[in-house]
Amino acid sequence: MTPRTALRDPKQDRSRATRRRLLEAAVACLAERGWAGSTVAVVAERAGVSRGAAQHHFPTREDLFTAAVEHVAEERSAELRALPAPHGEGRVHTVVEALITLYTGPLFRAALQLWVAASYEEQLGSRVTALEAKIGRETHRMAVELLGADESVPGVREAVQGLLDMGRGLGLANLLTDDGHRRERVVAQWSRVLETILTPRD
Amino acid sequence: MTPRTALRDPKQDRSRATRRRLLEAAVACLAERGWAGSTVAVVAERAGVSRGAAQHHFPTREDLFTAAVEHVAEERSAELRALPAPHGEGRVHTVVEALITLYTGPLFRAALQLWVAASYEEQLGSRVTALEAKIGRETHRMAVELLGADESVPGVREAVQGLLDMGRGLGLANLLTDDGHRRERVVAQWSRVLETILTPRD
Repeated sequence: MTPRTALRDPKQDRSRATRRRLLEAAVACLAERGWAGSTVAVVAERAGVSRGAAQHHFPTREDLFTAAVEHVAEERSAELRALPAPHGEGRVHTVVEALITLYTGPLFRAALQLWVAASYEEQLGSRVTALEAKIGRETHRMAVELLGADESVPGVREAVQGLLDMGRGLGLANLLTDDGHRRERVVAQWSRVLETILTPRD
Repeated sequence: MTPRTALRDPKQDRSRATRRRLLEAAVACLAERGWAGSTVAVVAERAGVSRGAAQHHFPTREDLFTAAVEHVAEERSAELRALPAPHGEGRVHTVVEALITLYTGPLFRAALQLWVAASYEEQLGSRVTALEAKIGRETHRMAVELLGADESVPGVREAVQGLLDMGRGLGLANLLTDDGHRRERVVAQWSRVLETILTPRD
């Protein structure tokens, strides 16, 4: 059989690299300029790609930006899953800190702009709702796994959900000003609380 | 002395009523159409006020929409403060539910549109940052009071802050779909948790 590498098509590689550049430029653009300032043309220029090539990959503006948020969300999930499982004292705090960083970077800012635009832009509505649900489920699954949470214990599922809701709220609080100092103390306190919920005493 | 009522100027009353109609229309407009779709002209029409009269009250678009969010936030605070202080079992749950409703109605939707627009619209930036800080402080103070929280106890301040961050996150989760059922369970669980934090056993 022909070795697998011999099957790689340099043209396909270039196409994949272009697609990736467009997705990353789209997320940065959404995070910085909001939906109103995010067009295919602006992203193509930022990515150094012709407008025609951009439209070949993403026929509509909605295609480009929903694909971009999905792509970056998947990358962030993969990074988190690749973290070595923390052990010992402070384990919950370490995991909670890692989860909360999902909501304080450019991905959350971009996703937020998309969610908010979807609340009034009809052509975004259903696609973004589906995407939000998918990212939400995936984040929850990852949180349960990283925390080693036993969801069969009453209240544990809701505690993990509430933690992620808090993460979203902390992300929002970080949108206009650097809220890092306050956030650190909130995260420390709720990590302690979560720890007692996850490891009930007999 | 002339009785107070005789001093009331019907022209001033009309002016105040016009102002109020504009503010309420502005919040509804922001919540439904986002910043991009919210102009003074659209709000004036919705309020049944001439564009000239609208501009007399609010010279700029930024004046109108920041004043609108501030006005409605003050009204909501006044309503919450007027609630009879709940007593007995389930008290914390009742208060937490009331606080969380701050984040699931049209006021939060309108404020969210304004915060998000302020992250990329320079002329909104500093005004909205100041407004957000003011509303945040006021909400925190109200939460502490309604919960009867003793912030001199270590961790209590951060617990209340985290609760309000969670409220913001729950509001965001409710933006595109009705998240009421899930929210109810999260609120019930975190109310139980908060209760144990606020009433430490000796």
